[in-house]
Amino acid sequence: MFCPVIELAQQLIRRPSLSPDDAGCQALMIERLQAIGFTIEPLNIADTQNFWAWRGQGETLAFAGHTDVVPPGDISRWINPPFEPTIRDGMLYGRGAADMKGSLAAMIVAAERFVAANPHHRGRLAFLITSDEEANATHGTVKVVEHLMARNERLDYCLVGEPSSTAQVGDVVKNGRRGSITANLTIHGVQGHVAYPHLADNPVHRALPLLNELVATEWDRGNEFFPPTSMQIANIQAGTGSNNVIPGELFVQFNFRFSTELTDGAIRQRVEALLESHQLPYTIEWKLSGQPFLTSRGRLVDAVTNAVEHYTESRPELQTTGGTSDGRFIARMGAQVVELGPVNATIHKINECVRASDLQLLSRMYQRIMEQLIA
Amino acid sequence: MFCPVIELAQQLIRRPSLSPDDAGCQALMIERLQAIGFTIEPLNIADTQNFWAWRGQGETLAFAGHTDVVPPGDISRWINPPFEPTIRDGMLYGRGAADMKGSLAAMIVAAERFVAANPHHRGRLAFLITSDEEANATHGTVKVVEHLMARNERLDYCLVGEPSSTAQVGDVVKNGRRGSITANLTIHGVQGHVAYPHLADNPVHRALPLLNELVATEWDRGNEFFPPTSMQIANIQAGTGSNNVIPGELFVQFNFRFSTELTDGAIRQRVEALLESHQLPYTIEWKLSGQPFLTSRGRLVDAVTNAVEHYTESRPELQTTGGTSDGRFIARMGAQVVELGPVNATIHKINECVRASDLQLLSRMYQRIMEQLIA
Ligand SMILES: [Zn+2]
Ligand SMILES: [Zn+2]
Repeated sequence: MFCPVIELAQQLIRRPSLSPDDAGCQALMIERLQAIGFTIEPLNIADTQNFWAWRGQGETLAFAGHTDVVPPGDISRWINPPFEPTIRDGMLYGRGAADMKGSLAAMIVAAERFVAANPHHRGRLAFLITSDEEANATHGTVKVVEHLMARNERLDYCLVGEPSSTAQVGDVVKNGRRGSITANLTIHGVQGHVAYPHLADNPVHRALPLLNELVATEWDRGNEFFPPTSMQIANIQAGTGSNNVIPGELFVQFNFRFSTELTDGAIRQRVEALLESHQLPYTIEWKLSGQPFLTSRGRLVDAVTNAVEHYTESRPELQTTGGTSDGRFIARMGAQVVELGPVNATIHKINECVRASDLQLLSRMYQRIMEQLIA
Repeated sequence: MFCPVIELAQQLIRRPSLSPDDAGCQALMIERLQAIGFTIEPLNIADTQNFWAWRGQGETLAFAGHTDVVPPGDISRWINPPFEPTIRDGMLYGRGAADMKGSLAAMIVAAERFVAANPHHRGRLAFLITSDEEANATHGTVKVVEHLMARNERLDYCLVGEPSSTAQVGDVVKNGRRGSITANLTIHGVQGHVAYPHLADNPVHRALPLLNELVATEWDRGNEFFPPTSMQIANIQAGTGSNNVIPGELFVQFNFRFSTELTDGAIRQRVEALLESHQLPYTIEWKLSGQPFLTSRGRLVDAVTNAVEHYTESRPELQTTGGTSDGRFIARMGAQVVELGPVNATIHKINECVRASDLQLLSRMYQRIMEQLIA
């Protein structure tokens, strides 16, 4: 069986593109896109390779994705070498098979078929590809978005190829992601000897009622699309290591995954009000990793739903769970953003794999989305 | 002015005996004690030098102390080199002047004068000296005590020369010390990603109500001789350093300084009952550093009080505050134990010093204690 989607996916997997190394993946994609009339704009920033490509004009549908992969881990535990793709029992194995070289191959082949069938398509078809989504992501999609926004590029719909599915392709699509913000909190006390507690001020003791309240707080109840905002203490540290020294400072790092019911500003305000109410001497630094975004409805959601239903005969579930994705940057352009990709059960794991027929189906879904929006 | 106490104190300070190095201090003391008829029993264990010395028989009064000193710190900040004793404005400067080479000199000279005046004293006069009290103290007094207990040595009264005084010599004597016990507690959770809190179990969140209760607990109210038992969290740690990982374990180390109203067993029982009541998966390890001891009254307290009153015309205050001392080991022999030494304002600090006339007074007090108990 020869299938252009599987063939291209294998070619991409053979290139060991550990973030932010692209290892020749984008050159392969660019060659294919140029052959069907795309204009290519490379945007390489520092160690990261990115490109923006487009064909046609007007209302714009972009496919977004990343060529980089996470490290393979213990290679001896793979059933085949991670960068030598193999098909066994209908599954394509290899690092990146599911996250997300399979999706990239499905996009390219979908574009080829769409252009062949619609050489004079009405709207604009585009690609936004980066080689650093898995690592720092600082020179990747965010920079391309800034570049495009600076010149007022139009972007109406964006389909991100992240592996959104859980049991079969299209059973889940993501129509948003929670925001993420981290607080680095230091509570200041007075160091001393445990034998003389009256001469010291133990910041751990002083902070416990605050931390208790922080953990017990209901931040919101979520909404139709988002689970309730959750807060987790990720790191806590105090003490010199000695058992007879009262620590002088307590460090606590906690992270919020927040819904569209909250903003980062509201979170900061509530936490700082809590700190004030406990009258604790503190220093706090905030780091916003991503605003929440949501595409609650619209033409893109409709087109994706239609495409999934057409090929699987069941309606996709819209979810906003999981970590952040590059969708958080693209949403800033005002675009509708939806993530649709293969089953994510094995991503970032040993023996990452994807059902070969799922990739073929995914490519057809992508093509049908193009047809609905810009044919 | 020539004074044998100051002269000997200076000789001891000149020997840089950083724990557990004795640097020749004990040889000096042994020479003086042998000259007045003491039998010497060296007890060197690993890197630590100790000796037990005695003269006479029957009811036994021992003087206990250490020849080791803590490091001098930044030598450039000393007004004189720390191991070159100097007298300025009546103060003797040098590392160990107050803690506790001054006391050792006062003891030796007191013994010389006592023996000269009472060559056929009724009871037994003894010395228990170690070169490691300031560091680990594992091969010091505790080992000598074990050795003496193994052969049923008699020890009725023990005067420890630790610097007990606060403003003038003898204003405070210690007639006990609090106990010290440390808990190393691990609360077990399930590690996970902050984006998927339902798949993890954050041990920090789970432990906060327990820790809050632990810190709010009144362990006892102390008694006539002891302040209330105090508990301090000395170290707390959880987290991988990453802001998106829910930690799998929380480590908390806390230390109790406890009065004679409590026992280490009672503390363990109450903490573990609290842990059970919070239904937390935990592991706990206890380390007992010292039982509390108390010499509430008796002939030694009376003799010390009398000696101080005789030379200062004011009554000493009996206290049990501060850290642990080697008294905790000696008390196990069933002896009455009291600590009397010079003013402790500068111990372990830059420019450690002691009033020279205080050492002379201290030596007279020691001698008067000998006379009351074993003359
Ligand atoms: Zn991905
Ligand atoms: Zn000392």
